[in-house]
Amino acid sequence: MNEAALTLEGWYALHDFRSIDWSAWKAADDEERAGALEDLHQFLQDWNAFEQEGKGSTAVYSIVGQKADFVFMHLRETLEELNALENAFNKTTFAQYTTKAYSYVSIVELSNYMGSGDGDPKANPEVMARLQPILPKSKHICFYPMNKKRDLSDNWYMLSMEERRSMMRSHGMIGRGYAGKVKQIITGSVGLDDWEWGVTLFSDDALHFKKLVYEMRFDEVSARFGEFGSFYVGNLLNEQRFEEMLKL
Amino acid sequence: MNEAALTLEGWYALHDFRSIDWSAWKAADDEERAGALEDLHQFLQDWNAFEQEGKGSTAVYSIVGQKADFVFMHLRETLEELNALENAFNKTTFAQYTTKAYSYVSIVELSNYMGSGDGDPKANPEVMARLQPILPKSKHICFYPMNKKRDLSDNWYMLSMEERRSMMRSHGMIGRGYAGKVKQIITGSVGLDDWEWGVTLFSDDALHFKKLVYEMRFDEVSARFGEFGSFYVGNLLNEQRFEEMLKL
Amino acid sequence: MNEAALTLEGWYALHDFRSIDWSAWKAADDEERAGALEDLHQFLQDWNAFEQEGKGSTAVYSIVGQKADFVFMHLRETLEELNALENAFNKTTFAQYTTKAYSYVSIVELSNYMGSGDGDPKANPEVMARLQPILPKSKHICFYPMNKKRDLSDNWYMLSMEERRSMMRSHGMIGRGYAGKVKQIITGSVGLDDWEWGVTLFSDDALHFKKLVYEMRFDEVSARFGEFGSFYVGNLLNEQRFEEMLKL
Amino acid sequence: MNEAALTLEGWYALHDFRSIDWSAWKAADDEERAGALEDLHQFLQDWNAFEQEGKGSTAVYSIVGQKADFVFMHLRETLEELNALENAFNKTTFAQYTTKAYSYVSIVELSNYMGSGDGDPKANPEVMARLQPILPKSKHICFYPMNKKRDLSDNWYMLSMEERRSMMRSHGMIGRGYAGKVKQIITGSVGLDDWEWGVTLFSDDALHFKKLVYEMRFDEVSARFGEFGSFYVGNLLNEQRFEEMLKL
Amino acid sequence: MNEAALTLEGWYALHDFRSIDWSAWKAADDEERAGALEDLHQFLQDWNAFEQEGKGSTAVYSIVGQKADFVFMHLRETLEELNALENAFNKTTFAQYTTKAYSYVSIVELSNYMGSGDGDPKANPEVMARLQPILPKSKHICFYPMNKKRDLSDNWYMLSMEERRSMMRSHGMIGRGYAGKVKQIITGSVGLDDWEWGVTLFSDDALHFKKLVYEMRFDEVSARFGEFGSFYVGNLLNEQRFEEMLKL
Repeated sequence: MNEAALTLEGWYALHDFRSIDWSAWKAADDEERAGALEDLHQFLQDWNAFEQEGKGSTAVYSIVGQKADFVFMHLRETLEELNALENAFNKTTFAQYTTKAYSYVSIVELSNYMGSGDGDPKANPEVMARLQPILPKSKHICFYPMNKKRDLSDNWYMLSMEERRSMMRSHGMIGRGYAGKVKQIITGSVGLDDWEWGVTLFSDDALHFKKLVYEMRFDEVSARFGEFGSFYVGNLLNEQRFEEMLKL
Repeated sequence: MNEAALTLEGWYALHDFRSIDWSAWKAADDEERAGALEDLHQFLQDWNAFEQEGKGSTAVYSIVGQKADFVFMHLRETLEELNALENAFNKTTFAQYTTKAYSYVSIVELSNYMGSGDGDPKANPEVMARLQPILPKSKHICFYPMNKKRDLSDNWYMLSMEERRSMMRSHGMIGRGYAGKVKQIITGSVGLDDWEWGVTLFSDDALHFKKLVYEMRFDEVSARFGEFGSFYVGNLLNEQRFEEMLKL
Repeated sequence: MNEAALTLEGWYALHDFRSIDWSAWKAADDEERAGALEDLHQFLQDWNAFEQEGKGSTAVYSIVGQKADFVFMHLRETLEELNALENAFNKTTFAQYTTKAYSYVSIVELSNYMGSGDGDPKANPEVMARLQPILPKSKHICFYPMNKKRDLSDNWYMLSMEERRSMMRSHGMIGRGYAGKVKQIITGSVGLDDWEWGVTLFSDDALHFKKLVYEMRFDEVSARFGEFGSFYVGNLLNEQRFEEMLKL
Repeated sequence: MNEAALTLEGWYALHDFRSIDWSAWKAADDEERAGALEDLHQFLQDWNAFEQEGKGSTAVYSIVGQKADFVFMHLRETLEELNALENAFNKTTFAQYTTKAYSYVSIVELSNYMGSGDGDPKANPEVMARLQPILPKSKHICFYPMNKKRDLSDNWYMLSMEERRSMMRSHGMIGRGYAGKVKQIITGSVGLDDWEWGVTLFSDDALHFKKLVYEMRFDEVSARFGEFGSFYVGNLLNEQRFEEMLKL
Repeated sequence: MNEAALTLEGWYALHDFRSIDWSAWKAADDEERAGALEDLHQFLQDWNAFEQEGKGSTAVYSIVGQKADFVFMHLRETLEELNALENAFNKTTFAQYTTKAYSYVSIVELSNYMGSGDGDPKANPEVMARLQPILPKSKHICFYPMNKKRDLSDNWYMLSMEERRSMMRSHGMIGRGYAGKVKQIITGSVGLDDWEWGVTLFSDDALHFKKLVYEMRFDEVSARFGEFGSFYVGNLLNEQRFEEMLKL
């Protein structure tokens, strides 16, 4: 049985990182700013309603440091919906006060290394809840993209399924040690974006991100085969906190 | 017989990725926007007419995420035509509301690893249809450039023709498993652009891109020798959808 | 016992490198510049007060060369405080005359390679003073991010704890040779930013930075396993020197 | 005898790639555009006169894709002349409607691997014609910079002169197969720019670029030791075509 | 005896590469340009006076190609002086017509591989003249930063002192072959900037740069262990030539 067939996919994901153009925001007059905030309010409401209806989910977090000021992480059923969503946002007055920082296109994925038992896994509500997850409202987010290395003798894709399965199992054990502390959502991006996976972590204590990722780094899967992109870390934004962030 | 002589080339290709300058678009007045849309309309019509006459083909897709907002993939008989085409576009009013995102110059290519039988392959209508293809109107596009690796013991170009042929055959088998699901157009870019090949995939289900590319990654050709650039993924734009995308 | 558990973490750190937009600064009128300087003054006062209260620490240095004009290195108890701090700065008039240059998010860390003895190390005031340090007012600063390499046979994370401990011990010996000359603050950034650690050095003689880093480079830990990012070096700015720097 | 002494150098080369700022060009009024075109006309005339006098040569080509819109490839006797030439261009009205895209500084070079016989090679008119070449007016240009690799066991500079000579001989054989189809000008840039060589190809059929570079890639010199930068490809611009390109 | 202790350091160095903003320069009126030229004149005078007093040295060269238009290479006793110098320049009217291109922070260094004999080397006037050099007024400059490689079996820092000394000796022999033709100033930048060394070459014939660097590339020190950044090459600017360059 081939590898791709063993993977389960759920909702498509768009991580949309943006920076605020503070000069433009400060130069705007009160009316313009009020209009922009009304746009933002409307979107946050709409996304929330969408989530209530079970047709997707959106997480909104600030980002610490200069890489970006905030991120919208959207989950939707189709690429068309994600595309419509970013276009709608781009047309708002609020968007004129932001600049692009980074984005990532992927799809929620359950690994083929967990034995998923008999029968159609998509008939299993627990599996479906993981493929179409409601994003947590934890205090902190951490996002990074990653590859499995293909470098001479350290080539993940030349290992046998058995070797990979055994390493992934021990890798999973570390993750399980953080159960209740860190919620992890894996999105696959082979054929969709520049890295092979996106990892999004949620926790009420940002230190858990460091502990978890550091502990995993000593695990052979990461130590020999992990290749990591940029890390983005931030804090939960509800509507009130978002407005506070923008208040001059 | 040398390698290059075994490859067949067809139409030249220009992938022209662009972003919309939303601030400028919103700042324009109705008349300016109408003029810009008229430009766009005229081009889409002309390209379509060109395609009808069998002198080339153009695909138009949106791109998801911040990398670009849309792509024009043009196939033409000569580099001069592609050049004239991009210059003509650059002079339009519509182009003033877009910014460059990425481009790729290549030429449709049939691999020398498929035995093409006796006689002049260019006399074969089936071969010509693959060298001068009408681009599909599938719902989704995926583009990425790639190299064959030349890294110490993982050096594709130091393998014998026989070894390469055998690996490419097994590689082709995976592709064939997606027949009817994914249409693949390979364009060669050695001596034309920064990577050795461009791969453009078309499908009505974007998930097939992920499945196909992921499955191939375990194949020795990709696992040991594939080197990949950025991936761009998007949705079909007909004229109506393009105008919707631009509607404020 | 796992690796992550052996590390102690203290205050979160934000290194915020910025450049002055000299054209805008020169184009401003006297009143605008006075307002901007008042903002700066207020912040430096506030940060100082914060430091007096033991709730954090901030170092302010110029940076030599074009990479940046100055850096704020902030230590605070939470990511939320760092975030609030950068947002507050972004809203000031002074910030409008600066541009982003680089930033780094990390957390003060004591290595698991020093035997920390029995009992709760956080009950030890000496340990706490290192985890929540008051940043020195030395004449010079040097900052660089770094990784431990994972490259085929030079893979730090595949070594045994004993090998790593022994190499780190000899590494530490070099550092100890600079006691009294160079003060070093290590911040961990696994899961927080793009490198694994940030190193911030303080000294009254910038030549010590060169001597120390060069001497360490011959040590196996650095020679085989050290991977370094950009180096930023600069001079202490008190409020008077900052104003001098900005005086036209 | 050392390696450097065996190489012959001729004219210095500056490849000056530029993009047209179409927004500014369209925003200009007719008089400004006429003035800019007059500048361009004057330069093309002057460069042509220079070439007639045998004191240098200049090729002018468009570039396909977004990397650049056109390239001036200048050959002159000294670095001072190249510098004067780019400064003179920068001061024109025409230059205000262009932006920098890429440039390359090098010097025409004849390899030390061809046995150049007895006597002073510079007394040989054929050698001099290759060191101070009049650039062809072929329909197409292709430019790329390259290095010889120095990577562990694939280190060109650790091979013996004899090994290098023998590989270069077989490499030259491929080039000779394209005699009459492709004209190749090698410029050395060790100590002058970021890569070790620039390769400029001229042909009436752009497909020859692909065939030649692809065939060479299987040759050990390229396969094991070639490291390539960006490829730029374009079409011949005479004054009339240049004006057409700019005509609104 | 440790490595760092064997190195001698002299003046700090700042290479400040800048481009001219030709659009702004052309848009300025005569009076503004005259004021800017007066600024430039004043600085060149001051720097010259500084050099006369033996408190530093400054070289001023144009740069060929698009990387930059000119470079100031400043030598001063302290990092504070270099910082003050760049800040003073940034405040001038002239600086408003330039943009940052690249900079490099380092310190003049004499290698520990030359036996420096008995006694305090800093008491030796010949040594001091090399540590605090007056920069030559040669016709051409060449600058590039470099590292010694640390890549698996090609790791300079894992070699014994004896091996390094012997390789550096043969390396030095090549340099000596260019005595009287090329003047070389080595500046160390470990702990100060992104590479380990800066190399600045001066010569009346730019071809010597190519010959010297190419010949060295076959030497084991460079072939196996040299890692090179961007190369900048240019022509001497005295005040008259600088004004000519800027004359419209």
